[in-house]
Amino acid sequence: MEPALRAFFAWCCCERATFVARINRWRHDQQRWLGAPQYRFTEYPVLTTPLTSAERENGSTFAPKFDADGLLTAVVVDDRTGEVLVVAHMNDDALSQTLETGHVTFWSRSRQRLWMKGESSGNVLTVRDVLVDCDQDALVIRAQPAGPTCHTGATSCFYRRVERGESGVALVKVKT
Amino acid sequence: MEPALRAFFAWCCCERATFVARINRWRHDQQRWLGAPQYRFTEYPVLTTPLTSAERENGSTFAPKFDADGLLTAVVVDDRTGEVLVVAHMNDDALSQTLETGHVTFWSRSRQRLWMKGESSGNVLTVRDVLVDCDQDALVIRAQPAGPTCHTGATSCFYRRVERGESGVALVKVKT
Repeated sequence: MEPALRAFFAWCCCERATFVARINRWRHDQQRWLGAPQYRFTEYPVLTTPLTSAERENGSTFAPKFDADGLLTAVVVDDRTGEVLVVAHMNDDALSQTLETGHVTFWSRSRQRLWMKGESSGNVLTVRDVLVDCDQDALVIRAQPAGPTCHTGATSCFYRRVERGESGVALVKVKT
Repeated sequence: MEPALRAFFAWCCCERATFVARINRWRHDQQRWLGAPQYRFTEYPVLTTPLTSAERENGSTFAPKFDADGLLTAVVVDDRTGEVLVVAHMNDDALSQTLETGHVTFWSRSRQRLWMKGESSGNVLTVRDVLVDCDQDALVIRAQPAGPTCHTGATSCFYRRVERGESGVALVKVKT
């Protein structure tokens, strides 16, 4: 087989989320090459010198701080109700893909792969707003859910409260 | 010095948050010994056999799942407004202390110690409700803040939004 064709097939044969990311990257590169206006693509600067605490906390530079495992915490809340829907982690790729596509994408620690929320159920989370905290190691993403966010079918993953009882604590279901 | 006295001094000489935890533990032990009713103390079972996925997701057993570093994510929201105030981590001790004292306590990864929110500023977060997610590795804590939650003086740590512009993204302050 032609090496170019082989490379193309290798490029295509990957997880759906990775494929979406590649397509978007390709679309972006193509647009940049053609000089066309970029569509929904955002880049945050890769900083060569670290920010001071004051710059990090009060400045306007977006410099997400990933932990030792290359992750930060993302809290997704319903844009209309303000309810916390899901808490998960993002690596650099997941964050880029979220900002590029406008669909919340996490890094799945258990599956060790990019995971666009709703990729199998269709219940995607469309980004409306992204907030960052003081030290830039956590995000609050206000999003519009296309359906129940939790894989159990609940609106939010936080469908149980910790209740104190005589014999310790127990979980009690709440309406979400 | 008497060994007992030496041990007592060693017990007392520690960080304030650790001391509070020790005092609470002692108070609990004393109450248990005296047969008095327990006051604001809650215990969650230490499980010898792991839960199945179904038990973890649908059951009533509170079995918080700590990651490889012994941490879980805690999202604190304002009980009245629903606004996300702060996102941080808890280890087993921090979670126990939060449930015991009713004041949100984290594990500070940078300082490697227990950190009761508001321990220096007085702006404690009083727990009103604790929610757990499907796989029990994240908590949403509804709390009443005694003052601004962020150390910068902002009501919430999430006081900047990520805005898309011509030349990439930048952070813009928002009212919290």
